[in-house]
Amino acid sequence: MKVFDIAPVKFIDDKMMILDQTRLPGEEVYIEAVTKEDVWDAIYQLKVRGAPAIGVAAGYGLYISVRGYEGSDMEGFRKLVRDNSEYLNSSRPTAVNLSWALRRMERVLDEAAASGEGSLTVESAKGLMLAEAEKIRIEDEESCRAMGEYGLSLLKPGMGILTHCNAGTIATAKYGTCLAPIYLGQERGYDFKVFADETRPLLQGARLTSWELHKSGVDVTLICDNMASIVMKNGWIDAVVVGCDRMAANGDGANKIGTSGVAILAKEYGIPFYMFVPTSTIDLNTPTGEDIPIELRKGEEIYQMWYEKNMAPEGVKTYNPAFDVTDHKYITAVITEKGVVRPPYDVNLRKLKDE
Amino acid sequence: MKVFDIAPVKFIDDKMMILDQTRLPGEEVYIEAVTKEDVWDAIYQLKVRGAPAIGVAAGYGLYISVRGYEGSDMEGFRKLVRDNSEYLNSSRPTAVNLSWALRRMERVLDEAAASGEGSLTVESAKGLMLAEAEKIRIEDEESCRAMGEYGLSLLKPGMGILTHCNAGTIATAKYGTCLAPIYLGQERGYDFKVFADETRPLLQGARLTSWELHKSGVDVTLICDNMASIVMKNGWIDAVVVGCDRMAANGDGANKIGTSGVAILAKEYGIPFYMFVPTSTIDLNTPTGEDIPIELRKGEEIYQMWYEKNMAPEGVKTYNPAFDVTDHKYITAVITEKGVVRPPYDVNLRKLKDE
Repeated sequence: MKVFDIAPVKFIDDKMMILDQTRLPGEEVYIEAVTKEDVWDAIYQLKVRGAPAIGVAAGYGLYISVRGYEGSDMEGFRKLVRDNSEYLNSSRPTAVNLSWALRRMERVLDEAAASGEGSLTVESAKGLMLAEAEKIRIEDEESCRAMGEYGLSLLKPGMGILTHCNAGTIATAKYGTCLAPIYLGQERGYDFKVFADETRPLLQGARLTSWELHKSGVDVTLICDNMASIVMKNGWIDAVVVGCDRMAANGDGANKIGTSGVAILAKEYGIPFYMFVPTSTIDLNTPTGEDIPIELRKGEEIYQMWYEKNMAPEGVKTYNPAFDVTDHKYITAVITEKGVVRPPYDVNLRKLKDE
Repeated sequence: MKVFDIAPVKFIDDKMMILDQTRLPGEEVYIEAVTKEDVWDAIYQLKVRGAPAIGVAAGYGLYISVRGYEGSDMEGFRKLVRDNSEYLNSSRPTAVNLSWALRRMERVLDEAAASGEGSLTVESAKGLMLAEAEKIRIEDEESCRAMGEYGLSLLKPGMGILTHCNAGTIATAKYGTCLAPIYLGQERGYDFKVFADETRPLLQGARLTSWELHKSGVDVTLICDNMASIVMKNGWIDAVVVGCDRMAANGDGANKIGTSGVAILAKEYGIPFYMFVPTSTIDLNTPTGEDIPIELRKGEEIYQMWYEKNMAPEGVKTYNPAFDVTDHKYITAVITEKGVVRPPYDVNLRKLKDE
């Protein structure tokens, strides 16, 4: 099976299918979302995760939640859209892509109503919404593909590549961000040797990255996070590729916990470190990484989650940050859908955003 | 409860008690070893682990396995000692301290026989063996305590200290190697803030280090291995302390997987990195770390062990080295029971061993 068959959200034969990522890597199950509750539940329960993938789910989800509207009362239809949008938005309030996609779905109706001399019908409104949901998906796929091409221009066939967490096809519409060049290389016979950090405590590397790469026929080796140093020392790694949750104006990038450590090791071993950052993730209003708040999560994720029994003594203190900030000085290049950005980032990221 | 109450092997009221470390951190159970099979089983099943602790268990274990010998036939007694020694040695053939301690127990009888004008009785032989077992334990405890004092001379009250894996009291006769200064500091009100890496995949940091420190009243915070970078960046770490499984003549030190990564992070953040190395662990016949073979273990330890279900896709490749080598250039000082060694290690380690 190729990457082309894996996607977190598919819309086929008028059916919205969601890959239940909570059942990976053991079972690959696509569930059909029929009602708005199905979509809400899938987002809330993290069956679909990854900012772009959530945006895609929101688009199709809002559409399927209103397509059964009967009659031609446009006002009633618009009210249903608003209500369902608000409802879906409550499934994961902090996910920026969720509200962004839902607003975009509503805006397409606003604009059609404003420009269409009052001739917008319920049927054509439904058609516009499906088209917009498709557009959200396709735009993200194109963005990922572009990042993949730019990323691939920095890599050579046969290279060893280390990645951390999951910024892959199932976190986006398709291809992923930092895994996109690996899939494009796979299509072209590049024979990359990929090493996936398991990424404690939530194990996205073990459960998701190694699953989607293995499934796609990519040569992938799973390691514990603390083995990144030895695989680099062994000479097995030629490049590190990671995603990004938020990049500050100076190029400091927040990403999954552990990313900053991998970046420092890469620098020490003389290995290029590439961060894949959609331009929407670059926040020029955040001056530096110091200004990015770090989410702290429960200690149970460290010593209890996944395990058969507690793996730490009762009452022990823990520290469980979900992200860390990689200083821009460790980032060899930032790969966006618009091109590759090199230091000085404070100048060049602004230039890119202004284009 | 203080560290003084925790020990991996206790000999109290003529009873040999072994802390069953496989039941930590959930249950603190001391099992009585009565037969040689009990001792064999405890070592084989890793109920007692850590090179020095295994040596202590071997000493007492050989003693209890022969103390029930009835009669005064010295030849028969010596044969039983030899047989039981061979039997116990098979419990973990690669553990150097196991065979070392057993040989030492036999040698004390050889020497007594050679010097004692033929007057050695079975009863006095038993007494010599118990005394030797006690000596093995006490010497290790004194060695650890000395390492602790030297280590403490490098630390200041209130410091934040990061450690990896378990080189603590339950891996030795008492005090541990790299945790010894923490316990001595604890006695003297140093108020260290210790951070323990969980140490994947076997979780010695979570299960053992955080247990023994927490139990001893030390302020300890458990983190995932990939959080070492952020706690250093937060300014919480003033020193890193780790143990060592084998140090080459040039100062390269093999220790639990992940140690080399922690050392590189420490260097990058300007934090001293101290390796605690009993002189018996310094191997001048091994020129550099390149000459130290690295044990590879099963991939199941990464994705299956401890878990309720498999955490990686069926058939995925893994790489699971048990140790890595920390280059001597990252080691600020080597702490031994004879003193603190500073670079250049190729010269100064040899000098120390020659003393």
